[in-house]
Amino acid sequence: MINIGIIGVGLVGSELISQLAAYASHAPKISVIALTNSSKQLLSTSAYSPLDLSTWKQALQAQGTTANLSVFIDYVSNSPVPAIIIDNTSSQEIASQYPLFLKKGLHVVTPNKKAFSGAETLYKEIVEEAKNNNKLVFNESTVGAGLPIINTLKDLIRTGDKINRIEGIFSGTLSYIFNEFSKSGDDGQKFSEIVKVAKKNGYTEPDPRDDLNGLDVARKVVILGRITGMNMCLDTLPVENIVPEPLRNLATSSEFLSSLPEFDSHFDNLKQTAKNNNQTLRYVGVIDPIGDESGVKLVSLPLSHPFAALKGSDNIIAFTTQRFPNPLIIQGAGAGAAVTAFGIFSDILKIADR
Amino acid sequence: MINIGIIGVGLVGSELISQLAAYASHAPKISVIALTNSSKQLLSTSAYSPLDLSTWKQALQAQGTTANLSVFIDYVSNSPVPAIIIDNTSSQEIASQYPLFLKKGLHVVTPNKKAFSGAETLYKEIVEEAKNNNKLVFNESTVGAGLPIINTLKDLIRTGDKINRIEGIFSGTLSYIFNEFSKSGDDGQKFSEIVKVAKKNGYTEPDPRDDLNGLDVARKVVILGRITGMNMCLDTLPVENIVPEPLRNLATSSEFLSSLPEFDSHFDNLKQTAKNNNQTLRYVGVIDPIGDESGVKLVSLPLSHPFAALKGSDNIIAFTTQRFPNPLIIQGAGAGAAVTAFGIFSDILKIADR
Repeated sequence: MINIGIIGVGLVGSELISQLAAYASHAPKISVIALTNSSKQLLSTSAYSPLDLSTWKQALQAQGTTANLSVFIDYVSNSPVPAIIIDNTSSQEIASQYPLFLKKGLHVVTPNKKAFSGAETLYKEIVEEAKNNNKLVFNESTVGAGLPIINTLKDLIRTGDKINRIEGIFSGTLSYIFNEFSKSGDDGQKFSEIVKVAKKNGYTEPDPRDDLNGLDVARKVVILGRITGMNMCLDTLPVENIVPEPLRNLATSSEFLSSLPEFDSHFDNLKQTAKNNNQTLRYVGVIDPIGDESGVKLVSLPLSHPFAALKGSDNIIAFTTQRFPNPLIIQGAGAGAAVTAFGIFSDILKIADR
Repeated sequence: MINIGIIGVGLVGSELISQLAAYASHAPKISVIALTNSSKQLLSTSAYSPLDLSTWKQALQAQGTTANLSVFIDYVSNSPVPAIIIDNTSSQEIASQYPLFLKKGLHVVTPNKKAFSGAETLYKEIVEEAKNNNKLVFNESTVGAGLPIINTLKDLIRTGDKINRIEGIFSGTLSYIFNEFSKSGDDGQKFSEIVKVAKKNGYTEPDPRDDLNGLDVARKVVILGRITGMNMCLDTLPVENIVPEPLRNLATSSEFLSSLPEFDSHFDNLKQTAKNNNQTLRYVGVIDPIGDESGVKLVSLPLSHPFAALKGSDNIIAFTTQRFPNPLIIQGAGAGAAVTAFGIFSDILKIADR
């Protein structure tokens, strides 16, 4: 038996609950006993009984009390059986409390990148408190959603393989943009048009510059770099911001989008140069434990490169190691509620199995 | 603490021991307490103390006693801490004893395909005894060596995803042969020449017909099919044997190799037909839980298909599911001692973690 408290019940949280509900119907050993969003929280009425996952939305609305994270955490941490906190937010504030959660005897599972890609002190504190309290912190969904990336990397490392290089396309948004852009012929869609379509379809952040600046990819590089044992920091990682310099300080997203066409020729030139060399543009993150190439950059790759054949908004990652001189490659959807919840759920099961 | 008894100390077993030795030097919670090949066995001298993994070969030679599997199993199963039997053989006889091992309280980890692809009665008995005795049977290395294939499939299923189709190139040998064959131009190497080179380089079974008949791929399809919940049997699975009919009953491997050139035009025709359609030949295994296409066959795939870009002797697998309508793809070396031992070691760690 394991009890679960869920922080964040938006798109990913709701999907997770529905996956857990389907599971509980045939294997009732994982129970959700508390859930909260930023305004309201719902704790099970009779102590630590499972919440009814078919009516949680109405119940949160009708019986939920004002959200109070410390009350919430206290309730979950006093669970008579082992308990996990799921953090589905992207909140730095909640991430900074993981050490506290661990001290209180909770396991942590999360797709929230902040704790693992932010200040090194917090990261180290989390690793240490997990160890001290014999608790687990699993974050498979922070990189490539449910793709088995972090678990594979940890398995490689724990079994003594030597990581020579990790490379990947870690942003579904930038994957989509460059897959579309490189696909189109000379008469094809302009870069600015593809960005506009991506925004319209909900593939980008509200301000697409938050994708194009590379910060999200950089966070994923830092997460993987730290797992490989590197002292990596967001502040010092070389990151190529592909937002044209003059557009970086524009106040609004719509000003940015209306000015972006002025730079279409810039992107066309990059594309043409790549094409002349039988190459294609891809925005990649690199973890280089034995050299100094770690970073995030727009590169040209030969058409025979596995990243060149990528389609849609798929992510891809290539682990080049001592045992896999031809890289071990994992590819597939790296964003979206269903696959993110899948990654969280897999992590939950790994804890429940113990 | 967990104790390990290793059956089979050839290429894979030796590599596993050397990976375990490197691990034990910094995390001494996994101990090898017994090992055996078909002629000799070595049990730790003072009861259940770890064997010295730096001198095991000499010790097996000098102090090993005549191999006796029932003595070996009794010793390991009386371990004061939980114990795992690693079966590195490809023996049907040992596979058929897994239910007994489980009854004796042992976990089982193995790259041996026999138990999972053979008689359904044995397979079901193993699943049942594992459950009854609360023991684990892990076999990641039976398909694609250390590639995280079986774990990923189990995670997808346990979390409630719906498997629509699994397709893969599961034989390193046939991957190599068709990658080379399709790579070569009209003036390129003949099929028979590529098979000869593959044999010479040790990529094939002693008799290459044991690769070309598809049985090894079929075993992997059955393993994956059963995990997806299908009642699949080696005897009834449609398998395309690409050994030309007249060569199947030749007595020796060398007779086969010297007659194979007579069929080069047959393979050239297949290749040319594929090429005319902008396709390429690949030997694939298919698991089709919702239709009736499960089987093993030589197919033509469009050049844009992820399997078409495969290189060397890599394996590749594509899971098409409800959550991954664009498939989740895993690719990399699927054979060889280092990566097979890696898969075994990952399974050991998953048991040790519990």
